[in-house]
This record gives sequence, structure tokens and C-alpha cells, in this order.
Amino acid sequence: MNKNLVFQQLFDSESSTFTYLLADSRTKEAVLIDTVLENLDRDLKLITELELHLKYVLDTHIHADHVTAAGQMRKRCGVLTAVPKKANVPCADLNLSEGDEIKFGEFVIKVLETPGHTDASLSFYCEDMLFSGDALLIRGTGRTDFQSGSSEELYKSITEKLFQLPAETRLYPAHDYKGFTSSSIGAEIKHNPRLGAGKSQQDFIKIMSELKLSYPKKINEALPANNACGSKDVKALDPRLKISTIENLKSRADDILIVDVRRPDEYVGEQGHIQGSRLVTLGEDLTRFLESYNRSEEIIFVCHSGTRSAEAAQLALQMGFEKVSFLDGGMLHWNKAHRPV
Amino acid sequence: MNKNLVFQQLFDSESSTFTYLLADSRTKEAVLIDTVLENLDRDLKLITELELHLKYVLDTHIHADHVTAAGQMRKRCGVLTAVPKKANVPCADLNLSEGDEIKFGEFVIKVLETPGHTDASLSFYCEDMLFSGDALLIRGTGRTDFQSGSSEELYKSITEKLFQLPAETRLYPAHDYKGFTSSSIGAEIKHNPRLGAGKSQQDFIKIMSELKLSYPKKINEALPANNACGSKDVKALDPRLKISTIENLKSRADDILIVDVRRPDEYVGEQGHIQGSRLVTLGEDLTRFLESYNRSEEIIFVCHSGTRSAEAAQLALQMGFEKVSFLDGGMLHWNKAHRPV
Repeated sequence: MNKNLVFQQLFDSESSTFTYLLADSRTKEAVLIDTVLENLDRDLKLITELELHLKYVLDTHIHADHVTAAGQMRKRCGVLTAVPKKANVPCADLNLSEGDEIKFGEFVIKVLETPGHTDASLSFYCEDMLFSGDALLIRGTGRTDFQSGSSEELYKSITEKLFQLPAETRLYPAHDYKGFTSSSIGAEIKHNPRLGAGKSQQDFIKIMSELKLSYPKKINEALPANNACGSKDVKALDPRLKISTIENLKSRADDILIVDVRRPDEYVGEQGHIQGSRLVTLGEDLTRFLESYNRSEEIIFVCHSGTRSAEAAQLALQMGFEKVSFLDGGMLHWNKAHRPV
Repeated sequence: MNKNLVFQQLFDSESSTFTYLLADSRTKEAVLIDTVLENLDRDLKLITELELHLKYVLDTHIHADHVTAAGQMRKRCGVLTAVPKKANVPCADLNLSEGDEIKFGEFVIKVLETPGHTDASLSFYCEDMLFSGDALLIRGTGRTDFQSGSSEELYKSITEKLFQLPAETRLYPAHDYKGFTSSSIGAEIKHNPRLGAGKSQQDFIKIMSELKLSYPKKINEALPANNACGSKDVKALDPRLKISTIENLKSRADDILIVDVRRPDEYVGEQGHIQGSRLVTLGEDLTRFLESYNRSEEIIFVCHSGTRSAEAAQLALQMGFEKVSFLDGGMLHWNKAHRPV
């Protein structure tokens, strides 16, 4: 490792998340990757003690299992926050895409797009170290069953991009659940049980489809907060609130009511709308509609990106509806999934 | 870091213990430091995958919070196990003292005696990395309130020995409870709240005396097992069994019965015996004595090093006594504490 590079790996035992501190020991400029709100004070104290100047706080993706500390760090120290451009988080200072570079002192972090765990997931590459977020884990991978995840895409991201890095590249993922703290690209190519050791894309898709993982405990709090740069002011969503995926909506579109809560101009605009969906704009229109509607009926709410529809579903729950959900990623993800290839 | 050095840090989330793997990538010889029995399969699988040949399994000290995997690794792979010489563990292959060297490939681990957490604790120094066991922790230290620990000694070990290493030495402790994974000697000299930042020995002794930590959950299982090289065959001690320290025995020696369970020749031999203690040799003598004795009386058992007295206390518990304990470290520690300085 370059002797001017400061590197520290930090761990959050509650969510098994790794946070990484990188800095240039001469210019003192520092970067944090994948912070956790609960460790805000620990991490800022460490940076003060090491006499570093925090410049950037990066997130590899919009986390579903913990709330990022990025927004709070920006408030406290004026850092720049950065998230994947495709995640569509306007409150972030930087929206990163393939090929972007984050510079601190003499060092450069290269941005790699590695979708699959989410459709916007990034990996960061710096000085022979790969920070892979939830794409490639040590002897594992991120899950692909929500947040517009895709096993096909994740297989391609890992085998066609990450596995092409030099074998000795040190792998530092965003999580580990077995007590590993790092690995190497070479070791994962040989020993990763999901897609190393010559596993095909079909093998991988089958393995991933059979995982049947439960949803992260904090998903209803973490997703809206992280879409708002980790703001604590975002109300936690009701734990009864369900998130619908595109697949699960498609298979049931004929049986259940789909309510589009956008404005009329959006409904008939560029993005179009889901066939059979009913336009009831969020606000008085929606409140009046729900008041008169049967509480035992199932409703899926849709909007542009998932923010207003989550609010609509939340409102419906408060009014006594029990079977409500909102479409993850809204029309943005719907159109992407239905775009002709 | 030397490019031929393989280094991996592993974590046990149950006991918050770090295990370290060091190896020479060319000769493939490997060493493990501070293993945990529950991770035996994980660690051996990793060594197989990395195509290493495990040569040594080292313990920095006799752990009270987890059982070492050293004995089981020796059974499975014929490695050499090594513990501190002063811990008096005859089943280990190597008994290490100050200045000893452990060689793997082109690399050398230097043994440093750093007593204080226990009277036998070691640290290991290799290629600018310090494996400090439970002596120096990140922004903390090991406790000093059992296993013949001593705050005076720990202060000296850390400030006079470990803090004399180059400031850039990476610190890798046996535990962390706050999510840190490494530090440096320089950072601890500046920021360790217990004995860095110019804290005096008196400050440190006061801080340590006020910690009032509860005993490790697994102490009654871990200590006897680790004194037997991590053998699973050692019966776990009864959880009701208490360990007496020398201080606590001294302060109450007049009120309670002290039973010395050694042979008569040991009682009158070189090691002497505690004034006022009663000789009742472990075996038929002791059984007969306990049968006739009042079950509500308090007894402290003593022997050479703590093994037979623990067995005696265990027996007494089984016979219905409730207030029994044994002297940690036996006459060995008693004499050491009373040796004229």
C-alpha cells in the first residue's frame, strides 16, 4: 500500500456494515465510504483525532438496512455527499456515473457502475483496493430481490467488470456476516460459491432465486431516509407498509386497483402510465377518494419515483386500509423494465 | 506491507475476538494468532482455499471469554501450538518468553512479554504490525481484575514497551467492541483515554479500579478448557463456582475456611502454604471431610496452580455447598504476590 495512504476499516455490528476511511497523510484530505448514522460521532471523532479534513462521503448505493450518516456529516462539516446518479437522489451534492473520479490529495477513487443488487449500485476502485458495496461480497454477493435488483445484471457486473481487475486487488465489501474483513479478486474468482469457480449465469440466477431472504429489519426506515440523504427528518414509514416490485405488480395487475397519484400532466406525459391504473392525484383528490373506498380492498400506489406513492400508502394505512403497497422506483423503474431492448 | 506477506484479519462476533492469519505467499507457511473454537471450520477452510500450510497456532494469553481452537487444529493438521511460558500450560508444544522468535517463510514474529491483563500475557510483533492481545486495545486496554492481572504491570508493559515501538506500527488487538479494526501506536500514544495523552500510572490505576466490569460469560468454561489447550473434553465448571483472587482472600482470611487440597509433601514443601489454611488432600480425604461439614459454611480451596482446587470446589457444589470458590492461580500466584520485592 502507498505509504501516504491512510486506510481504516470500521464496522457496525448492528447491521454488519463496513465503513471505510481513506485519506492522504500529507494533504490530510479524507473520504468516507458507506457510513452508518449510528456511528456518526465515532467516525467524526476518529477523523478529528487523526487530524484529517473530511472532503467526501460516498455511498455505493441506496442502502436498505441502515441509514447513511452522509447528510448529517454534511450538516456538521460541510462535506460533499455523493451517491449513484441512477439512484435519482437530488439532495446529494454529486451524482456519480461510470468513469467519474473522486480525488483526495494524490489519490483517485474511480467509479465503476456495478448494477444488480440495486439498479444503481456502484463500486469504487482506489490503489488496488475495491470497495464493492453490496455487489461482490466475500464468498457471497448482495441480494437481488428488491430495489430493482437483477441477478442477470449482477452476474454481468461481477464477472465482466470486477473479475477483470487484477487478481491481487483487495476486496472490501459493504457487509460481512461470517467474520471476514477482506478478500481478493483472485480468491473470489476461485472460491465464491455463487459465481466463482466457473459457475454460469444460469447457476447464479438459480442460486439467487432460491435464497428466500427476509426483508431487512430497517427497510421501511432506511429507504426513505437514504433517498433523502440520510435526513432524520423523514418520517419512518409504517412497518405495515409493503413495497411492490414490478414483477409482483405485473402478475397481479388485473386483480387489484393501481392508483397513480401523480398530477394529470404527468399521467399523460412522457413517462406514460400503467395500463389500467387510475389517476387520483395525491392531496385532496386522493383523501376524498380513499374516504369513500372499501377499506378491505387491496391498492397499489404508483408515482414518478416512489416518494409520493409511499406517502399515499402511508395515508391509506392511517385511514384504516390494510392491504396497501407502493411501487418501488415508480414509473422510472417501470419504464426501464419495459423499455424495448 | 511486504508483498510476500499474506495477512487476513478475522472476527468472531460472539466474543468480539479478532483472529489473525499471517503467511508467506511463496513458502505457503502460515500462522494463526488467537483462534476461536467456534470458527475452527471457517478458518481451516480459508487456509485450504488460500493453499497455505498452517505451521503454528499462537495464543497471546489464556483467554477467559472464548475457547481457543489451537488444540483442535493440532489434532486436525498437526500444527504446533504456542502459549506464554508463564501461563504454565504443559500441553502446548511451545512455551514462549521474551525474545523468542516464530518463523514462517521469510518472516519472523518476535515475542514480547506484556503482562498486566494476565501475568503471562504476550504481544507479537511482525513486519511493523503489533498483535497486542488484551494488553493494548484501540482507545482502551485489557481489564486487570482477574487472572493475576495488575494495573501497575499493564501500565509499564504498554508505556515502557509497546509505546516505544515506531509510531507508525499498526496495532491489531485481540478484541474490539466499538467497530474499530486497527489503529497505530502513534494514535494510541496521543488518544488512548486510559494511558495515552500523558496519563500517569496513578491515573491509569484509578481508571482501572473504577471499571467494575462483570465477569466474561464464558469464563468458567473458557479458563479450564484453555489451560488444557482448548480441549473440548475438559468438563465445563459449574456456573455457580466462584473464583477467588488473592486480594479478596487476604481481606477475608480470618473469617472463612481455607482448604488446601494438595498432597502433604507439597503443603510442607518449597511453596509453603497460606497461614491458617487446613490441609485436606483431594480424593477420599476431601470427600470424607466435606460429607461431615456444614453445607452453609463458606470455603475457599487452594492448590498449586488452581486446577485441583477448582475440581474440589466443583465437588463441594455437587455435594450441596453453596458458598465455595477456588484461588485463581493457586500457591504459584500467592507466592508471587508475597515475594519480597
